[in-house]
Amino acid sequence: MPRPLLPQVGSLQPGVRNAITDVAGVTVGHHTLDENEVQTGVTVVRPHGGDLFRDRVPAAAVVINGFGKSIGLVQVEELGVLETPIALTNTFSVAAVATAQIRQCIAANPETGRALSTVNPLVFECNDGYLNDIQRMAVTERHYLQACEQSGAVVEEGSVGAGRGMSSFGLKGGVGTASRRVPAHSGGQHTVGALVLANFGRLPQLILAGHALGERLARLVDGKREAVPAEPEKGSIILLIATDAPLDARQLRRLALRAGAGLARTGSVFGHGSGDIALAFSTAYTVPLHADQPMPALAMLHDGLIDGLFQAVVDSTEQAILHALWCARAVTGRNGHARQGLAELLPGGFAP
Amino acid sequence: MPRPLLPQVGSLQPGVRNAITDVAGVTVGHHTLDENEVQTGVTVVRPHGGDLFRDRVPAAAVVINGFGKSIGLVQVEELGVLETPIALTNTFSVAAVATAQIRQCIAANPETGRALSTVNPLVFECNDGYLNDIQRMAVTERHYLQACEQSGAVVEEGSVGAGRGMSSFGLKGGVGTASRRVPAHSGGQHTVGALVLANFGRLPQLILAGHALGERLARLVDGKREAVPAEPEKGSIILLIATDAPLDARQLRRLALRAGAGLARTGSVFGHGSGDIALAFSTAYTVPLHADQPMPALAMLHDGLIDGLFQAVVDSTEQAILHALWCARAVTGRNGHARQGLAELLPGGFAP
Amino acid sequence: MPRPLLPQVGSLQPGVRNAITDVAGVTVGHHTLDENEVQTGVTVVRPHGGDLFRDRVPAAAVVINGFGKSIGLVQVEELGVLETPIALTNTFSVAAVATAQIRQCIAANPETGRALSTVNPLVFECNDGYLNDIQRMAVTERHYLQACEQSGAVVEEGSVGAGRGMSSFGLKGGVGTASRRVPAHSGGQHTVGALVLANFGRLPQLILAGHALGERLARLVDGKREAVPAEPEKGSIILLIATDAPLDARQLRRLALRAGAGLARTGSVFGHGSGDIALAFSTAYTVPLHADQPMPALAMLHDGLIDGLFQAVVDSTEQAILHALWCARAVTGRNGHARQGLAELLPGGFAP
Amino acid sequence: MPRPLLPQVGSLQPGVRNAITDVAGVTVGHHTLDENEVQTGVTVVRPHGGDLFRDRVPAAAVVINGFGKSIGLVQVEELGVLETPIALTNTFSVAAVATAQIRQCIAANPETGRALSTVNPLVFECNDGYLNDIQRMAVTERHYLQACEQSGAVVEEGSVGAGRGMSSFGLKGGVGTASRRVPAHSGGQHTVGALVLANFGRLPQLILAGHALGERLARLVDGKREAVPAEPEKGSIILLIATDAPLDARQLRRLALRAGAGLARTGSVFGHGSGDIALAFSTAYTVPLHADQPMPALAMLHDGLIDGLFQAVVDSTEQAILHALWCARAVTGRNGHARQGLAELLPGGFAP
Repeated sequence: MPRPLLPQVGSLQPGVRNAITDVAGVTVGHHTLDENEVQTGVTVVRPHGGDLFRDRVPAAAVVINGFGKSIGLVQVEELGVLETPIALTNTFSVAAVATAQIRQCIAANPETGRALSTVNPLVFECNDGYLNDIQRMAVTERHYLQACEQSGAVVEEGSVGAGRGMSSFGLKGGVGTASRRVPAHSGGQHTVGALVLANFGRLPQLILAGHALGERLARLVDGKREAVPAEPEKGSIILLIATDAPLDARQLRRLALRAGAGLARTGSVFGHGSGDIALAFSTAYTVPLHADQPMPALAMLHDGLIDGLFQAVVDSTEQAILHALWCARAVTGRNGHARQGLAELLPGGFAP
Repeated sequence: MPRPLLPQVGSLQPGVRNAITDVAGVTVGHHTLDENEVQTGVTVVRPHGGDLFRDRVPAAAVVINGFGKSIGLVQVEELGVLETPIALTNTFSVAAVATAQIRQCIAANPETGRALSTVNPLVFECNDGYLNDIQRMAVTERHYLQACEQSGAVVEEGSVGAGRGMSSFGLKGGVGTASRRVPAHSGGQHTVGALVLANFGRLPQLILAGHALGERLARLVDGKREAVPAEPEKGSIILLIATDAPLDARQLRRLALRAGAGLARTGSVFGHGSGDIALAFSTAYTVPLHADQPMPALAMLHDGLIDGLFQAVVDSTEQAILHALWCARAVTGRNGHARQGLAELLPGGFAP
Repeated sequence: MPRPLLPQVGSLQPGVRNAITDVAGVTVGHHTLDENEVQTGVTVVRPHGGDLFRDRVPAAAVVINGFGKSIGLVQVEELGVLETPIALTNTFSVAAVATAQIRQCIAANPETGRALSTVNPLVFECNDGYLNDIQRMAVTERHYLQACEQSGAVVEEGSVGAGRGMSSFGLKGGVGTASRRVPAHSGGQHTVGALVLANFGRLPQLILAGHALGERLARLVDGKREAVPAEPEKGSIILLIATDAPLDARQLRRLALRAGAGLARTGSVFGHGSGDIALAFSTAYTVPLHADQPMPALAMLHDGLIDGLFQAVVDSTEQAILHALWCARAVTGRNGHARQGLAELLPGGFAP
Repeated sequence: MPRPLLPQVGSLQPGVRNAITDVAGVTVGHHTLDENEVQTGVTVVRPHGGDLFRDRVPAAAVVINGFGKSIGLVQVEELGVLETPIALTNTFSVAAVATAQIRQCIAANPETGRALSTVNPLVFECNDGYLNDIQRMAVTERHYLQACEQSGAVVEEGSVGAGRGMSSFGLKGGVGTASRRVPAHSGGQHTVGALVLANFGRLPQLILAGHALGERLARLVDGKREAVPAEPEKGSIILLIATDAPLDARQLRRLALRAGAGLARTGSVFGHGSGDIALAFSTAYTVPLHADQPMPALAMLHDGLIDGLFQAVVDSTEQAILHALWCARAVTGRNGHARQGLAELLPGGFAP
């Protein structure tokens, strides 16, 4: 689905790809499982191309609503760094992907958990059980590795990778990404990128670029199919933020929290059953595994100059959610359950 | 300014007054100081008409952005109760109002701080220094008491009480309130009310009921007056949520957090220099001061039934902010600084 | 090792077993793997004998030092309940045990993740990599189920279950438990129980019931074996607290935090590399899975009466750690690594 | 009272003064009010001799038990810096001292709250209402300034400044300080200093350098005076940690949390009615007020090297509490209430 049919939110300019990979060094990979009842996958966001266990990137997370089963946040909060790529998958596949991350780290660092410390897997999840037979736990360690191998700067969106089986606003959800550029005080500019795994929201709540179209779309959908009884949201959204601005963990936590503002603008009320978690990282420097290696000695951004980044987080998050909805093609899965794509509902493009 | 010219956000119905006082027992009072360079005041929200020190109400707060100087949150977080009315004022008058709350408690409970524990003042603030000579610290203990005495179910909005000197989106800010009703699982309904002290935002960010009118209004304003150089936001917003639903402190924290979603929809990115703090309380029961008095033994709402309340918090918060902007009449204060009211900019009412 | 040779800390009385199972309904089970390089296992604490997914117990956790890889805490913090038994194992086996918990829940509730919400696995870990070949990931889903099946009121301590390969203060660590009884305001009494998985501390830090014996014991150990170069702590401790007092999640968080005080008294400084996590739960009531089932309507304990429980948490935690050390028999494992038991070092019993 | 009669806890060496002022640049000042029913005061800790509003020091706080009425923590947590000296006083004098800090800042920076942002007062408190007529609110703004003017490197301990009216373990409490030195990885050494305002604990709980002497001392005291009915703790302790190690706010939060371990070792269970708050700051660098001034570009300490600082925090905190107890001379105040000093109870010095 060509994105130009979608409005651009806010007044900041996007980067070249309008994707999280506009932050230099960041790559994204998917592995998609699409076979009858199995509609799921893995998505990986890699902050840099090296070994994150040895060269960690500063990071922080915010739990907006904690109805979620991710692994890895306790240590991120304590130490303020990532030491693996960030993985996204379905709720019941967190364990398989976490094990894959551990083995990946051992392969690169054979003393992991022995002479070296153990590694902290970082896996986020949403529940794709409406379209995917989640109980089958179809994701394997190999699928995670394939997502890593496939990762690059071009980001496929919609019903791919971890987004394959996701639903959002009663429509097809999935992966979306966007970016914004912010003038830097020192000249040049900072880039902020967002990537979301969207699996949240009830259709009447949907707000598209400020337009509360949810009720209208709900009537449109209801006219086209058998009425589905309204059920409580059992979704989630994972919100990943990348930036090249030099920020420490405290400041990155501030960025992560603003992803919630972008989320709110799409109609979310951070529903009870939704695991809404945001994580922000910076690519401006790395922290070495070994204590005897030199620590980075660069100046962080002054907090008084951070508002532009906040705006970029909010706008790129909202935009990434719109992209996820717009790019998600229809999927039919478990028990014949089906979700339509937003773009199919609005074939002429977005016209409020 | 008659509110009917404003759109109503969301699909839930407001209460009779569309005010926080639709939650039975809650009252609001103002004391306004309006004398040349002094444009400030005190606003009080009283959860019930009794002595809160003896009969506490469950409460919880969320710091959305902590650039703020409120007093009292540490103990609210630990104990999950309010033990004074909630007071709002300007940044440099927190101390005077806190002292007034202590003396008010001593007057009612002479052993406060002796045989009884000390009392926890709860005062929130925003910086009204653009219109008000904040360094004069004009608010006195007496003004707090007057706001208490004047409190009732009818809530004046706009440039009154603590809202007298506040600015929001480069326009006149102040106090706003709204409410929403939610069907209860057990029959009947719950009421959620919001009251805000709005002093945040830059004009280009403004989103009115989904309409990103900020840039257009900014040009309108710029055409009418000498250009004011853009300056970083030094505002804040206090977001108070009341409900009659039976919730414990953990659940009230969940409600308070959703006030941030309503705030985000008006254009806020939770700016660096803004102290954005939300507090939610329930009037469904009280907790006694004395440990030998019986504790309430009522069933809390099941978390699986809380989504309606979340929606009500988001919608009533956004609505309360719109009311604050719409009802705020122009004020001229310190150094001749002036802020226009939104309604004056849109004399024909809101037409997107 | 008979415990009577150990001093009893504090002045409160222990329960009948001086174990977490003195809290009525709580059971503990172990499955131990003891085969050459594999020295590890699983320990399970079950708050009640029923299905926790349907009948949840209130709970809260505190991360004292977050160098840890547990799974499940995000949702416990949000919802304030446990919905599975609590599992303990080694760091690289969290995934296997979490998967076992998911399958256990599906077996009992076939619509888990479909018509019902997904289940939140709760698995804590310490790194037993000094004695155990942790990279082998020897723990399987079956081992978790065996620990559940074997659970009962009698608690084996020391080098068993998840404690099999753990080290503490350079000695053999493992599982320990203790309890204390507190007079209730209303007559009768409350019971507090602690169970720890002890894998933390360097020997010179050890404080035994107030006696800073660490340096002396370190010299004793150094005289008996080849000097082992001091290395940074890579341990952890998991601290579980049970009580029958009626407390909500906010209050249980207060209890969990006091486990850190008991830990501190044994010499811990909450070392950088140690994942020190405490969780407290109450057996006084349950919260139903289904929102249409009645919520409990009992009075919580007044916070003003909680100090006795705090003392009981501190004392039973310290005592449980002493029990873990005292009951841990020597183990030799990976690469011929060996850890002595404290009781072997002090064959005449504890004499300060 | 000469400190040599007290044991030294731990194996690290203290600094020259065994005081928080061993951290270069830190000074401490007191102003004491001692007149019949008024037994109270103000203590100030200044991280450096300049204007903290312009040159902020990194800092972080941990609320161990939040039964407290301090002001300023919300902003410290958000921004990770101090912008005023740290003030200690009694519970009902927080407002007066906060106002003094605001006026002090305005005096040095006349545009505070106008062209400049507002200033964040930082005042901690304990309730000295047993000895002091706290309702009289005897502390004035002038007293805060006098404490600032009087500040220096020599720290008077015991019943002085904010410690004048404080009680601890049923004995006389007050101000205590200590320090420890830690070898730095890069050669040289780091210094950690602690200063406490001790107003917590019931006598039977007291542990002196590992010796649980509380019960014995309680019998000794009971024999000498009319039995005082045991009452719930209504105390508090403020724990301030200074270091010259280069740490960011996240790391300083880790240090602050370890002060709780030192506190636990003296017998505290972090009682319900006690406001136990720790704050740590670093003098290694400053953060400028103005965003256009250069940010510091120095390397932080690697987290893998932080354990020595943790040990120093624990030991210096425990030692500072011992010093507070040992140096506190008897005071008689409100209603003839009196507290003995520990050193008077143990005239031959400490002999376990």
